[in-house]
Amino acid sequence: MIKMILDVMGQDAPASEFIRGAVDAVREYGVDITLVGDEGLINDVFIKEDLSMEKIDVVHADSFVTMEDGAMSVVKEKSDSSMNRGLKLLASGEGDAFLSAGNSGALLAGATFIVRRIRGLRAAFGATLPFESPVLLVDSGANTQVTPADLVSFAKMGRIYYSGMYRKEDPTVGLLSNGTEETKGTPLQKEAYALLKDAGVGFIGNVEGFDLTSGRADVVVCDGFSGNIALKTAEAVGRFTVKTLDETLRSTFFSKAAALPLRKRLRETAKRFDPSEYGGAPLLGISKPVVKIHGSADARAVKNAIRSAIYYVSTGVIYEIARNSSKLVYKDGAPAGKEK
Amino acid sequence: MIKMILDVMGQDAPASEFIRGAVDAVREYGVDITLVGDEGLINDVFIKEDLSMEKIDVVHADSFVTMEDGAMSVVKEKSDSSMNRGLKLLASGEGDAFLSAGNSGALLAGATFIVRRIRGLRAAFGATLPFESPVLLVDSGANTQVTPADLVSFAKMGRIYYSGMYRKEDPTVGLLSNGTEETKGTPLQKEAYALLKDAGVGFIGNVEGFDLTSGRADVVVCDGFSGNIALKTAEAVGRFTVKTLDETLRSTFFSKAAALPLRKRLRETAKRFDPSEYGGAPLLGISKPVVKIHGSADARAVKNAIRSAIYYVSTGVIYEIARNSSKLVYKDGAPAGKEK
Repeated sequence: MIKMILDVMGQDAPASEFIRGAVDAVREYGVDITLVGDEGLINDVFIKEDLSMEKIDVVHADSFVTMEDGAMSVVKEKSDSSMNRGLKLLASGEGDAFLSAGNSGALLAGATFIVRRIRGLRAAFGATLPFESPVLLVDSGANTQVTPADLVSFAKMGRIYYSGMYRKEDPTVGLLSNGTEETKGTPLQKEAYALLKDAGVGFIGNVEGFDLTSGRADVVVCDGFSGNIALKTAEAVGRFTVKTLDETLRSTFFSKAAALPLRKRLRETAKRFDPSEYGGAPLLGISKPVVKIHGSADARAVKNAIRSAIYYVSTGVIYEIARNSSKLVYKDGAPAGKEK
Repeated sequence: MIKMILDVMGQDAPASEFIRGAVDAVREYGVDITLVGDEGLINDVFIKEDLSMEKIDVVHADSFVTMEDGAMSVVKEKSDSSMNRGLKLLASGEGDAFLSAGNSGALLAGATFIVRRIRGLRAAFGATLPFESPVLLVDSGANTQVTPADLVSFAKMGRIYYSGMYRKEDPTVGLLSNGTEETKGTPLQKEAYALLKDAGVGFIGNVEGFDLTSGRADVVVCDGFSGNIALKTAEAVGRFTVKTLDETLRSTFFSKAAALPLRKRLRETAKRFDPSEYGGAPLLGISKPVVKIHGSADARAVKNAIRSAIYYVSTGVIYEIARNSSKLVYKDGAPAGKEK
């Protein structure tokens, strides 16, 4: 039986959203879940909302990492935090995956120091953009600066994740740049282009912001700074567009009642490209499944993240990444996992 | 009388779209326009489409800069190109602004070498994102690498442009980063944060991709690499969302005829946040108005770009930038205009 470890503290949303998401996931997927956080607070939610505790247990933590805390706080001054506890449960085998919507920097640091990286790999977030077809963006925010060799390693990890999760053999890889021509980009992109071309990773060349919706490449590699900007811009524009169009429908000649089914349909379509529908972003390169849930996740998004984490665990993607880890490191360049 | 110089060659769209856009602009705004390009080709379009040549003249160019040409080609091997000719007309005072949808790198190089920069300033594209309120993104693609001092200079130029064009006094400035906290970003953002804080530019701190739709900051400064990715991602997601929702409406229970007025309304709303509605992106820091028209512009977008360029010229924004140029350069850092 698969067991998920869910951090219910330190995110923007209230813990109750996360607890409800967990209860829904138990009911729908029959998974076991360990909730980590303030035990009193968690129990209060169960009582107040009259939720079933079936297949759920609670591990208490005295504190939690806030968004303002430094990345290393999770292993230093906040070693009694829910994030630290949860990562330790994962590391010691008392669960199959750890999920958190807390401080990303701390999650990266905690996963690196408590769960450990796969030898030689640099960890990176892989967020899926759900437009024409899924596009996996690696790194979507773990490392603001990377080396060209890191990008090759991201491409290789991303391909294994992509083909496992989205059942596509031999996914294509694009390098995010400011134009499709080989000469585009900063020195990072130019050097990475040369490496990727010969890396046997289905490289199709540079891709632009435009291609994040087209699915021209399945896996798009970039530094975590650009990736984070692309990811958040895509989310913001998607949400804004849907909101504006919904307001248009509401204010059109229609009566409110007549517009209702149409607006419902609109929102269903909108969900199709809501990143939270695709679940969380895995920390690729960590030796066990660690998943970042979307910062503004509600109960539904938490449930979806658990669903996708179950699939992530059951496909064994991470063990395939580990098995291939020596091949994932780009040999002729700097070791991909080396910290700068 | 204001006179526009329009390059009709070297863009993705056919020259006929640009010529039609120019004719429409003459009719609607009464502006004079010089078209630069292959004279035979241009005359053919006028004859074939039976367009009025009132207030339009044509300057012939033997060649044009392609998207594949290097940036310096415009002043070297392609000195007989339409872009070179048009920039020279602007430089010699035979027009008030030059507009082109051609090769951005060549436009930057040509503007720099033929029209010249305002002393001490580094030129940057300023694209307007048209969501909750206009957000001016500087640099949206001219320089893949910039210094912290450049970002201060972009903020100052951007504020002058913004308040002139969008009639807002004392616009706010945000620094594009991967999180709102002061500690976020690469060394570039961290150093720029420290400079911007004390620069008297209405700095509100770091902004994220999310803020490009919210209008939390009026002017968002960034390097041209990240800016280009944000701009293209925003455009792609906006377009994809509208397309998908339009398909939903088409396929919903409605009859096609019943859905038609609603779909029309949807597209009108969609236009509201189509970047081409806002016209082109000026090359801030160049001593005369040079405007990049959107790469996939059609006749309507060309007309809009001319409209906004007329306003750009008539507000005298560029002369205010020039008048203030000594104040625009960040004194305590590296000179902002110094090429690396």
